[in-house]
Amino acid sequence: MSTNDPRLAATASSVRGAVDMTHGAGGRAMAELIRDVFQRHLANEFLAQGNDAALLGTVSGRLVMATDAHVISPLFFPGGDIGALAVHGTINDVAMIGARPLWLSASFILEEGFPLAELERIVVSMALAARDAGVPVVTGDTKVVEKGKGDGVFISTTGVGVLADGTDVSGGNARPGDAILVSGTMGDHGVAILSKREHLGFETEIASDSQPLHDLAAAMLAAIPGIRVLRDPTRGGLSAALNEIAQQSKVGMVIREAAVPVKPEVAAACELLGLDPLNVANEGKLIAICAAQDAETLLAAIRAHPKGQDAAIIGQIVADQQALVRMETRLGGMRLIDWIVGEQLPRIC
Amino acid sequence: MSTNDPRLAATASSVRGAVDMTHGAGGRAMAELIRDVFQRHLANEFLAQGNDAALLGTVSGRLVMATDAHVISPLFFPGGDIGALAVHGTINDVAMIGARPLWLSASFILEEGFPLAELERIVVSMALAARDAGVPVVTGDTKVVEKGKGDGVFISTTGVGVLADGTDVSGGNARPGDAILVSGTMGDHGVAILSKREHLGFETEIASDSQPLHDLAAAMLAAIPGIRVLRDPTRGGLSAALNEIAQQSKVGMVIREAAVPVKPEVAAACELLGLDPLNVANEGKLIAICAAQDAETLLAAIRAHPKGQDAAIIGQIVADQQALVRMETRLGGMRLIDWIVGEQLPRIC
Repeated sequence: MSTNDPRLAATASSVRGAVDMTHGAGGRAMAELIRDVFQRHLANEFLAQGNDAALLGTVSGRLVMATDAHVISPLFFPGGDIGALAVHGTINDVAMIGARPLWLSASFILEEGFPLAELERIVVSMALAARDAGVPVVTGDTKVVEKGKGDGVFISTTGVGVLADGTDVSGGNARPGDAILVSGTMGDHGVAILSKREHLGFETEIASDSQPLHDLAAAMLAAIPGIRVLRDPTRGGLSAALNEIAQQSKVGMVIREAAVPVKPEVAAACELLGLDPLNVANEGKLIAICAAQDAETLLAAIRAHPKGQDAAIIGQIVADQQALVRMETRLGGMRLIDWIVGEQLPRIC
Repeated sequence: MSTNDPRLAATASSVRGAVDMTHGAGGRAMAELIRDVFQRHLANEFLAQGNDAALLGTVSGRLVMATDAHVISPLFFPGGDIGALAVHGTINDVAMIGARPLWLSASFILEEGFPLAELERIVVSMALAARDAGVPVVTGDTKVVEKGKGDGVFISTTGVGVLADGTDVSGGNARPGDAILVSGTMGDHGVAILSKREHLGFETEIASDSQPLHDLAAAMLAAIPGIRVLRDPTRGGLSAALNEIAQQSKVGMVIREAAVPVKPEVAAACELLGLDPLNVANEGKLIAICAAQDAETLLAAIRAHPKGQDAAIIGQIVADQQALVRMETRLGGMRLIDWIVGEQLPRIC
């Protein structure tokens, strides 16, 4: 969803003023904030129960749970905002073990003085993202901290989902010979945030890829039920995610640089910023690992989905007790893809 | 659990230094923090899976979900700390609709510069609280914000639980004639925090009542399965919680001041601070509402539990379309118990 989503503009702000300490104090001001902003826009049968816990339905299958704190700066960026991101990020974590996300919770930490109209804009965006994804926010909490003890808005979301019998997707399942795929271009989200933060003013606006991936993951599992690994390369980008999987599975990897899809404008921005697009965060792409003989079928399934048109097979799993991730460069050399060691992109999600 | 819990002291700190931005950057430093602090102390089969989502078990019964952000200041206080509180607070929210809490998630927002040894102390306390309660932390997330953009540590926890068939506990279920009970003394937590914050140095140290209430709630439901309402009077204290319930159920309430248990030292501190103990937060007490004929049986069941020895019947539900909560004072007068309007006790939980 873009920040230009007409549904966002169509929501006339109903609140004025700024967050103050009474909005977190448990009294009448807090009750009004919850009613006028949170319940109003996120409205569903579960929030309407009005208790501190939401009573959901019965579930058949194995439960799955994931949580994410979101501290992204700036709060609004090309292609999204913290509200939509908090929905997408946690839905994706649930989806990356092959589960179907069902419900979300959201806890807000607000800084005194934050404009209520901006908070409402974030909540509306969150509501639209949740509705588009079919995963409602069923319960929440709001706390307020003094000015200078927070940074506008932090949002922690937790997702609960259900895993179908027989599905076994885990970072620990990769085996030598397996193929490594990505669902699209790398680095879009991180570069979008940085361009906004640094006021770089690129000629082409680069938008975040923030989007939910549970529908894509479901389509992929329908095509190849035996997918070994799914992971969304967020903080630390493709490099960190591949290294995590390599360590979990105790295998090595060889990636072909020329096969990794990167948008020309993202590559150019990274060049300018001195960044490697492989280290830059994504919020709407996934890595998939499957048996070599399933790779072409899986690639076709990803490309057939609107969220996977730039998918590619980028490399393979190899036996390696040191769990190293290596990359065959465009020039034919081989280099190590290490985790970033220092701080590269703070508060990217 | 007290901050003097010998199990806390027995955990020699294994980490040195302070949180820096690399601990949230998705690279090696973050992986090491997760391994050396979070996974080490919270260790369980779910965290060991190492994926962004935890695969849990199957559940029979209706699911329940609750979330809470914790921004308490100071982080360590008489009777607890933010780690234990984050476990107790969310367990209690799940328990207050009669459900059995099963699993917790925890997301941490750390401020750059926060001492790692203090973070470890908080995580150890969280681990002990989770173990004591039998509710493991199965998944988590860590983000870092720049110095001056946070306040040490914020923790959001989400709890998932299961509700037995036939149980129907909700703030909307109170009916005229019902009895209102509390499980113990009011105001201990808030006064403990304030005394630490204001360096008041009371003669008697007042400790927070922070504790999980799911076992007490289960014992109460075993005695009286038809309990109408359970609620833990946290922010805003007894006054806010009663007003919330009155509005949800569209009933009035009459409370007897002389019947509300308050420790003499808490009453004295409130007198000094100009506070009404009925507005002060609790973190280990509950309100229960049941049919009048069940009240004595329920009272006996609460008192028979180690966490309910000071329980009392404090008033009754009356028909009132305005949903007012009134109190019969010690002097025989009647006054309105309103919600706090302004800011009374910021960052009390």
